[in-house]
Amino acid sequence: MAKKNLFYAQSGGVTAVLNATACGVIETARKHSDTIGKVYAGNDGIVGALTEDLIDTSKESRSAIAALRHTPGGAFGSSRYKLKSLEENLDEYKRLIEVFRAHDIGYFIYNGGNDSMDTAWKVSQIGDRMGYHMSCIGAAKTVDNDLAGTDNCPGFGSVAKYVATSTREAAIDVHSMKQTKVFIMEVMGRHAGWIAASGGLAGKEKDEAPHAILFPEIPLDEVALVALVRKCVERYDNCVIVASEGLKWPSGRFVAEAGKRDAFGHVQLGGVAPALAEIIGRRTGFKYHYAVLDYLQRSARHIASKTDVDQAYAMGKAAVELAAAGQNGVMPIIVRKSDKPYRWEIGTANLQDVANKEKKVPRKFITKDGFHITEACRRYLEPLIQGEDPPPFKNGLPDYVTLKNETVKKLLTGKFDVAV
Amino acid sequence: MAKKNLFYAQSGGVTAVLNATACGVIETARKHSDTIGKVYAGNDGIVGALTEDLIDTSKESRSAIAALRHTPGGAFGSSRYKLKSLEENLDEYKRLIEVFRAHDIGYFIYNGGNDSMDTAWKVSQIGDRMGYHMSCIGAAKTVDNDLAGTDNCPGFGSVAKYVATSTREAAIDVHSMKQTKVFIMEVMGRHAGWIAASGGLAGKEKDEAPHAILFPEIPLDEVALVALVRKCVERYDNCVIVASEGLKWPSGRFVAEAGKRDAFGHVQLGGVAPALAEIIGRRTGFKYHYAVLDYLQRSARHIASKTDVDQAYAMGKAAVELAAAGQNGVMPIIVRKSDKPYRWEIGTANLQDVANKEKKVPRKFITKDGFHITEACRRYLEPLIQGEDPPPFKNGLPDYVTLKNETVKKLLTGKFDVAV
Repeated sequence: MAKKNLFYAQSGGVTAVLNATACGVIETARKHSDTIGKVYAGNDGIVGALTEDLIDTSKESRSAIAALRHTPGGAFGSSRYKLKSLEENLDEYKRLIEVFRAHDIGYFIYNGGNDSMDTAWKVSQIGDRMGYHMSCIGAAKTVDNDLAGTDNCPGFGSVAKYVATSTREAAIDVHSMKQTKVFIMEVMGRHAGWIAASGGLAGKEKDEAPHAILFPEIPLDEVALVALVRKCVERYDNCVIVASEGLKWPSGRFVAEAGKRDAFGHVQLGGVAPALAEIIGRRTGFKYHYAVLDYLQRSARHIASKTDVDQAYAMGKAAVELAAAGQNGVMPIIVRKSDKPYRWEIGTANLQDVANKEKKVPRKFITKDGFHITEACRRYLEPLIQGEDPPPFKNGLPDYVTLKNETVKKLLTGKFDVAV
Repeated sequence: MAKKNLFYAQSGGVTAVLNATACGVIETARKHSDTIGKVYAGNDGIVGALTEDLIDTSKESRSAIAALRHTPGGAFGSSRYKLKSLEENLDEYKRLIEVFRAHDIGYFIYNGGNDSMDTAWKVSQIGDRMGYHMSCIGAAKTVDNDLAGTDNCPGFGSVAKYVATSTREAAIDVHSMKQTKVFIMEVMGRHAGWIAASGGLAGKEKDEAPHAILFPEIPLDEVALVALVRKCVERYDNCVIVASEGLKWPSGRFVAEAGKRDAFGHVQLGGVAPALAEIIGRRTGFKYHYAVLDYLQRSARHIASKTDVDQAYAMGKAAVELAAAGQNGVMPIIVRKSDKPYRWEIGTANLQDVANKEKKVPRKFITKDGFHITEACRRYLEPLIQGEDPPPFKNGLPDYVTLKNETVKKLLTGKFDVAV
């Protein structure tokens, strides 16, 4: 069998360790030079494949690729572009196969969340139908930890470590002062409250911050929250709250709803912290402060979890090994063998079993009152934030790599328009 | 001369390295056991002195005191309580002297910003007038870096390192994606833009983020800002902005004004980022995101500047040495001997020369267009963020110390009411 090239694309929101997976993909592919030719990366993810805008990673030095392991973001660009169904837009899939055929791509690794696993699965189907067989492999990525089939998802452990650390640090600050009574920290998590849950690791004892965690899975009970805030201020002199951006009213409406929608048709959120601060301030008169972490939480490579970095790399490595072995329509997963000591290994799941599914925080991981995590949740979360893996520092700041990103000469004449 | 006890109080907003100064004070005092008795800390700062609520730090183990060096916040509590003028409230000063006399305090170290240096100076005056001589020494502390007399101020270097790192990381994230065109990061700095300026260290080249820094020293030119945003999005596909909470309109009104005032009579701010996002979004139609760092920036001990930690400790040590030497009404300062290589030493300033003064970012540190830092500013800032000094980690999180904080038996019968 002749050597085929590998196409790799990053998709969706970037993470602190997405490039560690890219590092695992490229370094492992270079070791399989008997079966794998060059690794081409999509410029801005799958959009790069559709527009034949491919980056030739073979132009990058060994040290530059190694530095991806400690660099946040998406080194080749990412995009939220979602392919429509085969029925709705078969042309897009045909175009993908056309580009892959032109550039002799035999392996496709799609590094993203549940939307992307759906795309990877569809491409694995359509290739065969069009007489162009490829190995299509998914590589899990999401800060939200909501991907089905895998015990946890690369990208989450680092945001969890950042959020838990930030909660602990801000709580010490609030506790040191006397004026601010309520502190609200807004974190990501549109439908799944894993990131908010990780804030719960900040405190060890019952009376330690955070005093309330607001999950998207638990509709906001305003009266109960205000009562809890009052109780905490009375007992601890302050109340520290970690709130998920996806927090909803009992009606199902987002507390932070801004009325806009993104390319995926998802409602664009922003401002659950100011919304909550306004409610609590108005009902209690307490002085409040709030922080909105936004992109900082998913790009804080400076305090990444070593466990997360290791798993992200391992996912990329395993994806290439599955591809080289001729597998199709699968993704490597993390299988937990034990909580304490934490042991994990790589398994495999079928893409159609994980595509478009969303793993929320189970009810048993949330305390009965709906405002904190249970011991079972703590047992699940704790291993994921273990270990430090700081990037090298230069002149006082993390030294992150910027790749050359040289593009591959286009071979197709037709232009293909993508509505990004 | 008989041994006298030392009273130490923390004041104002806490920092990532305020406790490093406390560590320097207590460890150094313990070495001067020939002249200094016990170190008492004010519970919640100067309020603890007024209410005779003193913490006996001699009850703390050597390892607990050593751990203060890597613990953020204010270990004994801090407060924004400001003593009025001698004319307005002489009773408060008399009460302080009464408490100091009762507990045989011969040394007073006040660790705070410019308000606190004013208080320390007044106490140094009134003691002598009331026939109770003490050594009153200031110890500089403020994330705002606005204290006069010293080249820079402990607390600032660490927030600068955190802000520059966060700007760099968020900018990589924004650059990786394609949808978000404008990212605004709100930082502290009510009247002085030093923290905002430190965001400028994130980029090395002209075209690197941040693309705009908004200083409290430069009134907001809305038209010029919107034009700059458009230019950046055209050239770099996005625009990363670091905005100071103290940004003002040409009229002098805060962009983020919320209409409330704190105990010092200062206007309470919040929300320059959402305010700017709304303006830019409305005028350009660009998709935006924003982050509000709030307390996280001044408590992020996990990424403190080693230079800052060293200087904070040195300030505490020098303050005790000045006290032990019988000095009064002075504070140790940082004197810069050279930029590159950075060399500094400890000097001394008179409290009345620094009290209530505010050191703003000089115009020559801001580019002509008002939107960035100059090379001179970079030369000043860079040394302050050098070096890493991570705290120990335990179970995946920074391991910060909580002191026992045993209080000293009260000796006075009268109750003194403090309106906090």
